[in-house]
Amino acid sequence: MSVTSSRKISTAVAAQQRGHSLDRIFYKDEDIYQAELDQFFLKHWIFAAHTSQIPDIGNYLNLNFDSESIIVVRSENNEIKAHLNICRHRGSRLCIEDSGTTKRFTCPYHAWSYRLNGELATARNMPDDFDYAENGLHSVKLELVGGLIFISLSASPPSLKAMRNDLGGLLSHLGIDRLSLAHQKRYVIQANWKLALENYQECYHCAPSHHEFAKIHAMAKSPEVYQKLKSEYWAKYPNNIKFQQFSRYFGLAEHGQEGYQYDRNPLLPNKVSGSKSGAAVAPFIGDLESYDGGASELMIGPVSFFLIYDDHVLGYRFLPLSKDQCVCDVFWFVVENAHNGRDYDLDQLTWLWDVTTQADKTIIANNQKGVNSRFYKSGRLSEMETFQQCFLDWYLQMLSPKAD
Amino acid sequence: MSVTSSRKISTAVAAQQRGHSLDRIFYKDEDIYQAELDQFFLKHWIFAAHTSQIPDIGNYLNLNFDSESIIVVRSENNEIKAHLNICRHRGSRLCIEDSGTTKRFTCPYHAWSYRLNGELATARNMPDDFDYAENGLHSVKLELVGGLIFISLSASPPSLKAMRNDLGGLLSHLGIDRLSLAHQKRYVIQANWKLALENYQECYHCAPSHHEFAKIHAMAKSPEVYQKLKSEYWAKYPNNIKFQQFSRYFGLAEHGQEGYQYDRNPLLPNKVSGSKSGAAVAPFIGDLESYDGGASELMIGPVSFFLIYDDHVLGYRFLPLSKDQCVCDVFWFVVENAHNGRDYDLDQLTWLWDVTTQADKTIIANNQKGVNSRFYKSGRLSEMETFQQCFLDWYLQMLSPKAD
Amino acid sequence: MSVTSSRKISTAVAAQQRGHSLDRIFYKDEDIYQAELDQFFLKHWIFAAHTSQIPDIGNYLNLNFDSESIIVVRSENNEIKAHLNICRHRGSRLCIEDSGTTKRFTCPYHAWSYRLNGELATARNMPDDFDYAENGLHSVKLELVGGLIFISLSASPPSLKAMRNDLGGLLSHLGIDRLSLAHQKRYVIQANWKLALENYQECYHCAPSHHEFAKIHAMAKSPEVYQKLKSEYWAKYPNNIKFQQFSRYFGLAEHGQEGYQYDRNPLLPNKVSGSKSGAAVAPFIGDLESYDGGASELMIGPVSFFLIYDDHVLGYRFLPLSKDQCVCDVFWFVVENAHNGRDYDLDQLTWLWDVTTQADKTIIANNQKGVNSRFYKSGRLSEMETFQQCFLDWYLQMLSPKAD
Repeated sequence: MSVTSSRKISTAVAAQQRGHSLDRIFYKDEDIYQAELDQFFLKHWIFAAHTSQIPDIGNYLNLNFDSESIIVVRSENNEIKAHLNICRHRGSRLCIEDSGTTKRFTCPYHAWSYRLNGELATARNMPDDFDYAENGLHSVKLELVGGLIFISLSASPPSLKAMRNDLGGLLSHLGIDRLSLAHQKRYVIQANWKLALENYQECYHCAPSHHEFAKIHAMAKSPEVYQKLKSEYWAKYPNNIKFQQFSRYFGLAEHGQEGYQYDRNPLLPNKVSGSKSGAAVAPFIGDLESYDGGASELMIGPVSFFLIYDDHVLGYRFLPLSKDQCVCDVFWFVVENAHNGRDYDLDQLTWLWDVTTQADKTIIANNQKGVNSRFYKSGRLSEMETFQQCFLDWYLQMLSPKAD
Repeated sequence: MSVTSSRKISTAVAAQQRGHSLDRIFYKDEDIYQAELDQFFLKHWIFAAHTSQIPDIGNYLNLNFDSESIIVVRSENNEIKAHLNICRHRGSRLCIEDSGTTKRFTCPYHAWSYRLNGELATARNMPDDFDYAENGLHSVKLELVGGLIFISLSASPPSLKAMRNDLGGLLSHLGIDRLSLAHQKRYVIQANWKLALENYQECYHCAPSHHEFAKIHAMAKSPEVYQKLKSEYWAKYPNNIKFQQFSRYFGLAEHGQEGYQYDRNPLLPNKVSGSKSGAAVAPFIGDLESYDGGASELMIGPVSFFLIYDDHVLGYRFLPLSKDQCVCDVFWFVVENAHNGRDYDLDQLTWLWDVTTQADKTIIANNQKGVNSRFYKSGRLSEMETFQQCFLDWYLQMLSPKAD
Repeated sequence: MSVTSSRKISTAVAAQQRGHSLDRIFYKDEDIYQAELDQFFLKHWIFAAHTSQIPDIGNYLNLNFDSESIIVVRSENNEIKAHLNICRHRGSRLCIEDSGTTKRFTCPYHAWSYRLNGELATARNMPDDFDYAENGLHSVKLELVGGLIFISLSASPPSLKAMRNDLGGLLSHLGIDRLSLAHQKRYVIQANWKLALENYQECYHCAPSHHEFAKIHAMAKSPEVYQKLKSEYWAKYPNNIKFQQFSRYFGLAEHGQEGYQYDRNPLLPNKVSGSKSGAAVAPFIGDLESYDGGASELMIGPVSFFLIYDDHVLGYRFLPLSKDQCVCDVFWFVVENAHNGRDYDLDQLTWLWDVTTQADKTIIANNQKGVNSRFYKSGRLSEMETFQQCFLDWYLQMLSPKAD
């Protein structure tokens, strides 16, 4: 980044008023977008998939955003690996299908082929001094968190150790490693990625915009009602491992650790899961044996979120396509070996968050139209947008890191 | 605007040869486009609508161009007001429908609601020190000219006083305040807005390109024939208030007044209105009691034009969507209380200018394709493009204002 | 071009490693794209059409790329002329149809009309001092090579003399002046033009990607097999004028000559033409009386290629639409007076190169997706990409010319 760009960004970060929505420049400036790619999407951990999505050797899937494409594959020795989806010869996309099964990755252009572990296997008619060992696929860092596959495009990504220490037992109890994907859907949103992510971070809009969600989740209530319900809910389950709170960004970041967040929140009385009626919708996950009337919120890294009901798990991932367009990828997970039609009904399972995410897609696009105006001014946040403020603080810190 | 951009624009203005079409830079340069937004579209008066389009309290409509959106509404106390269409909270578009009726403007995102006069009415869960009075909608300047609603996004727009002095009695005689909208249509044109506006400003293209128009309007004839017809026409109606000429841009602009233009031009013999055959097409407007075989041309501010036949009125408004795309909004007005099917036939009323504007849409897009070429050179204007030259002079003066 | 841009380009050219694919900057940088327009597309010779495509006075066709449009027309005195497709008045595209027949070019806007030779014929109502002689269409340089029409947008294009000296007799023997167009098709490719042109320049991808082509052409074999087949093929036809090799770029360029290349390559045994089965597909071209089992490759200037079978001729022309999009125009020529249905079957004639070019369109777009990644690194070229390397050398030399 040029000195000019860097100074522009620092100035913008310094000018941003706390307790207010972001200034227009953060949604409109191409240099800031490029800095976000550098500081977030090419550095931090991004949820790629659940291991159950690629159960067998040779199963692969691609993760795409902006100009980047990453292959996640179960390799020959049953290890999960990630590679850049770029042939080392002339740079063609290697893996064209979004997911599939293969013995090797063979470039559709000149047929260079790579082993699942990324090693170059064959390249015809190369000069004598051509070194196969130096022409394997560019490797991408990958870590498993329970069964969740995270990738980072950085050579030295933040450590996940603190997160594992805090959440390891909990994720195991919730059976995050024993899920299977029931459904996945990509929502393309005509807006800067932060408008989508901010939307996910606050429930101030839930009551007016998401009647369906507001009938199930206590979080859509006013702070007073919500806090009362939450206190009563937590009081009912003392010493339950699910009832913990972590909001770990700032101190951790200083020590090279990835940020994360975890909390447990009540549903409304007599609701037990994220379905149309709030009734149970699938078999219990993990070690759970009864509904407790709540759901857990989990965030690992800046753009990957999980909503953990007692009988299914939602994943949400926010990725930019360009400065003005992003996607929200939504994943619906159920306990492993559960089958649609027998153990759950896919339409019922996916109804609530499909209708909610579709509504958000429209809401967020309208937000973008408004911030496009030269006359948009950052506005005051409500008391129901404190988690969003928390995220904005982290965002601003990450965007304009202190010189080492 | 940066010093570099400012200097580039001054240089371009100085290099532009009079009597020639604009140099390529004026159609292609993004900095010039941004300066045009500043100097024209965010400063001068723009025709928004006729008061009859929002007759009742709560009726509203939106005016959109580039990234901006303005709500024009008849407010609680029956006053017409204009607000920026941006929620003061997180900046969402507030009013999504292009027109409608409402008691309040309620944001589709977090449900902040505003009174029709722009005051913030409700905002849930805001901090104690939140000041409602400071969070009303951004107000947009608005003036009524007869029944014509003009808005300006400037805090200190040019004055309309000179225009009112010259045209007040005339507009009243023509009954501009006693019209109703019969039809409105938006034509999206794949060209810089000036190519569309220049097209409107000259009738050199009318004979070859608009056979329909050329059968009705004397203006499509050669200057000699046209001037002869005009002299004869004016001689027939001495002391008639409709027969006046104003071309007021330059001296006025120096005194902070908005520019305007008015003239009365003959139709061809035996033609009385802008219909397919030139026959009458609707009841008389204003105080008129007979056809005089002509029509008035009126321009108020740089992008709003009116063509006033004895029995109906056309409005034309040119607005940019981006540097390379614009719209021409066309309005057809008839006398108030006239009804389609009884007093006029809508298809007959709209035929001439729909066919003409559609042809212009194609012509103008082809003009843009040509000026896109690196080899395009500004060409000599004809004797039938003097009004366009007049506009270009004003445009260049506005684009590169003298330092105060 | 600014000094900054010029220095950026020189730095990129110097940093480019030989024997490797181009660095990312050459596919992504807008300044480099503009320099390419200056150094290639606005300077060198581009194949426009065959004279047989405009046999009669008044026949015209347009050549379009990026923002430019050129009219090629057979003028009043039976000479072929090229003009910029821009009206000298206000710059409208003059000739809207891609091809046709006309007595004059009349502007669709204000009806200025031009003779076929480009002279301004009529312009209504112009000022007295308007000079017709100075307002003819901008002339574009044009040369005929056999019946091939080449145009250059430069005022002083490279000379075609060396090429004529080397290839004149050969082109005459092949009857290039005695062809007629059987079919033409434009393939729009979502990639930088160089990725398309590089694709055409190497046959390393033929075996894996073009099974249809690889069944006919020896060039798809490994270098050893191919060279053996080529030696045997050349040995069979000593002293045949078709068997020549020219690869003339570098020395020539220094003397202001246009570059060119010619070679003759074998088909596979028992194949005689570029059809589905390799069988004959049309009457012999030129002075040919028998199939020799090969085809000639001809390149004139940087973006125009010809593949000359014994019974038909393919033309390929690569032109940019923008930095990220280009076209490959493919022409199928047969001997003059050959008729579809009688002398050849159009579907059989066009099958091989339509299926091949459609496959390339996809391959090339995938290549662009890969080079879009920040992680793409220029890769090692194979022994089957030597002609591409030859082109890259020429490209880099042309892009960053030595100061005179």
